[in-house]
Amino acid sequence: MNRKAIVYILGWVLNIEAAFMILPFLVSVIYGESQGWAFLIVASICAAIGTLLVIKKPKNMVIYEKEGFVIVAFSWILFSIFGCIPFIINSDIPNFTDALFETVSGFSTTGASILSDVEALSYGSLFWRSFTNWIGGMGVLVFLLAITPMSGGGSQIHIMRAESPGPVVDRLVPKIRNTASILYIMYIVLTIVQFIFLIAGKMPVFDAVCASLSTAGTGGFGIKNDGFMSYSPYIQWVTAVFMMLFGVNFGAYFLLTLRRFKAAFRYEEARYYFIVIIAATAIITAGLLPRGLGFEPALRHAFFQVSSLITTTGFSTADFNLWPQAAKVILVLLMFVGACAGSTGGGIKISRVMILAKTVKKEITIYIHPNSVKKIKMEGKMVNHETLRATNVFFITYVAIFVVSVFLLSFDNHSLETIFTAVVATLNNIGPGLAEIGPTGNFASFTSLSKYVMMFDMLAGRLELYPILMIFHMGMWKSAIVPPIKRRMVQGRKS
Amino acid sequence: MNRKAIVYILGWVLNIEAAFMILPFLVSVIYGESQGWAFLIVASICAAIGTLLVIKKPKNMVIYEKEGFVIVAFSWILFSIFGCIPFIINSDIPNFTDALFETVSGFSTTGASILSDVEALSYGSLFWRSFTNWIGGMGVLVFLLAITPMSGGGSQIHIMRAESPGPVVDRLVPKIRNTASILYIMYIVLTIVQFIFLIAGKMPVFDAVCASLSTAGTGGFGIKNDGFMSYSPYIQWVTAVFMMLFGVNFGAYFLLTLRRFKAAFRYEEARYYFIVIIAATAIITAGLLPRGLGFEPALRHAFFQVSSLITTTGFSTADFNLWPQAAKVILVLLMFVGACAGSTGGGIKISRVMILAKTVKKEITIYIHPNSVKKIKMEGKMVNHETLRATNVFFITYVAIFVVSVFLLSFDNHSLETIFTAVVATLNNIGPGLAEIGPTGNFASFTSLSKYVMMFDMLAGRLELYPILMIFHMGMWKSAIVPPIKRRMVQGRKS
Repeated sequence: MNRKAIVYILGWVLNIEAAFMILPFLVSVIYGESQGWAFLIVASICAAIGTLLVIKKPKNMVIYEKEGFVIVAFSWILFSIFGCIPFIINSDIPNFTDALFETVSGFSTTGASILSDVEALSYGSLFWRSFTNWIGGMGVLVFLLAITPMSGGGSQIHIMRAESPGPVVDRLVPKIRNTASILYIMYIVLTIVQFIFLIAGKMPVFDAVCASLSTAGTGGFGIKNDGFMSYSPYIQWVTAVFMMLFGVNFGAYFLLTLRRFKAAFRYEEARYYFIVIIAATAIITAGLLPRGLGFEPALRHAFFQVSSLITTTGFSTADFNLWPQAAKVILVLLMFVGACAGSTGGGIKISRVMILAKTVKKEITIYIHPNSVKKIKMEGKMVNHETLRATNVFFITYVAIFVVSVFLLSFDNHSLETIFTAVVATLNNIGPGLAEIGPTGNFASFTSLSKYVMMFDMLAGRLELYPILMIFHMGMWKSAIVPPIKRRMVQGRKS
Repeated sequence: MNRKAIVYILGWVLNIEAAFMILPFLVSVIYGESQGWAFLIVASICAAIGTLLVIKKPKNMVIYEKEGFVIVAFSWILFSIFGCIPFIINSDIPNFTDALFETVSGFSTTGASILSDVEALSYGSLFWRSFTNWIGGMGVLVFLLAITPMSGGGSQIHIMRAESPGPVVDRLVPKIRNTASILYIMYIVLTIVQFIFLIAGKMPVFDAVCASLSTAGTGGFGIKNDGFMSYSPYIQWVTAVFMMLFGVNFGAYFLLTLRRFKAAFRYEEARYYFIVIIAATAIITAGLLPRGLGFEPALRHAFFQVSSLITTTGFSTADFNLWPQAAKVILVLLMFVGACAGSTGGGIKISRVMILAKTVKKEITIYIHPNSVKKIKMEGKMVNHETLRATNVFFITYVAIFVVSVFLLSFDNHSLETIFTAVVATLNNIGPGLAEIGPTGNFASFTSLSKYVMMFDMLAGRLELYPILMIFHMGMWKSAIVPPIKRRMVQGRKS
């Protein structure tokens, strides 16, 4: 375990957090809020610790998969812990567990809130909440890789793989640093385009900034108690479309910038993604029509909710708790499915669902034609054995975490529907669930234990399970604490 | 596809059904019921068709995996269709869909009922319901293999594998016919022992017969509207213990009869099975104690429900719908886990859950120690790659069927809890779920479409998914209908 490199990179993460916190401070200054100092104080602490850790750059910056996981897991935990302190200092969320829950929820792009009245928050806090959504969407380490030149001979790919959503992470260009930069540039441009569209619809500037940041990260933190319910139909349509766009693999956008249109539109995953969105919207619209709210509103609410939940954003223009049972079940299923790999969305991901579905189909075919040699293909290429295995095991791990979480949450005496969808909403980084935690509810009434379980789920969901799971494995700590030489001796004695 | 052998064996299945139906007819005669003729009429029809099909024994009785699946799937569907006709003729369940649902539920050892008042049924019908539980428990084809000498050079193992629960089916002895006989003899002896214990507790003879048959098959059809609630504590304890015993791998009992006690008690799966039962009973008892019903009743109710649900029997001594949330969640989790492989119980099976858990653990270890070579072991032996793969794919298929079923049922406007547990209860062959279909509810209020979905789930659950799934695969029908020679030509042209 390359502990020096780990500590060095964690130091940089803290420096970045310090820099990021200047923004909410400036927002507070603009709106003349005295509590804005909270951000400056915590930024200074982060900068001080961060600077201490990066004074001496280690000579050996080579990183393996294991280090990648450890760096990502600890970065996100550190980032969340420091990120929640301003909320406590400025008294917007005085309780530590609640403040941490809100920050983990923001950073993991979940958007689940313990607040019953977000409109009571200061502008600085509101901005910081939406900004954590944005940072978490593309990832803080991807940002770090984009801005700092690091040696290590390309071994930073392990950090990027550990932080990026999806079963496979490809380099867009040979250099990791350039890949990370391109991703962030596209991310920033798309966010700005959405902002312009929203401003064009006469959305207040502050609202448009926060909405764009939360949409881009598919986070879903809103600044209004009723979410998007009271915004104009135009703003709702724009937001629904952009949520959908941020759920597409960014590789497709990169191909578009290269004018390789054919290749961009040939993405099998994106095709299925749009098919699912269209089908779900059609069924739900049909279910809403008999309620007599007219075709456009029915279509708009159906599309908005579908787009919001499949991308795991979590915004809402309607209380889908009150929708027909079939619509609710479709929405819950979309929460599991999630967006495309390589997007900012969470969930299991369309590509994994496709691989799983193809696995089942292949199994049945083999029983019927035992001698047939059928290979599973994705994006026109054969899926190799290791990816298949990893996808299967990912799914099993996912279900295991799901089951254990439901079990732990059941000691809170909430309804089964609340508990079940609370885990769905946190593990898939969505935000709202059904029943007590529906679009008009919040997570405040859970016990602290349940809140920590859900924080684990949010981080595990965002980081694709393993980096966070590793922290609970004794072997990881042993190999991190026992010095390598001694370890080798112990191993030598054993064998 | 050896169609002649398939038809021949289906003929024998009908003959066996005819023979089995004599028993409920006799029960009706004993109790002086005029409707008993219904069973005799249907038995005659079965015997007539069956005899026609078995007149000419095909020369080639060699059977492959595919044929095994087809035989099992069609046997169970045929058996259910003919088995439901007496209910229609004797007017106990006049509606065809409901009668078929009840028969599929009985035969698949589910025990889910559409009846709100079982006590209104005739003795003949009550006996037939419990008897279908018993037949389904060990399987009608295993019975056929036990009593008829069939050529085919041991290829009948494919029939047995397709019908028996669990990831691996071992022959207890080299000959399949002897293995089947030994299984049925142990099954009959255990059923009789339970009957004697129940009679010793002054249970009425008819009640004891039906209770023993339903317990042995882990089916769960009761003959009282309140299930086991009004029976004495002694009868409840005896039934709870026997449910648990029927959830153990029958291979363990075989080792006991051979006096190989050490080997019998070394079954890893059975050990975990008992650990889970003890842990779940302890937690639920602790949760019930504050309700002030005393230690023995709390322990008894907890143990009875745990034993009933982990073995997927579905009897109940209490309305667990009213229990604490944590107890309910534990019970729902047990429904998924299921009993040991090679028992009469349903669900995913302890051994599969163990393999899945070990897979996850191995995956995490590999991330920490990339060079470690860790193999997954079960029962002291290394689990081969094919079993691992099959277990993973089984689990994925299971979840896929689960999700699609919940989706289809959601068009019925029931609560999410009802829909969710209805699928849990049918796919795992349990019987009762929660909310509207709890121990005091029934399945009558679902639409016909939902009932057929649940029938599919019950058969798929009992037959371990693939035999029933295959029926929905076009390739199966093509290869069954297109004559082999022509098919070979078509294939030749293609390649």
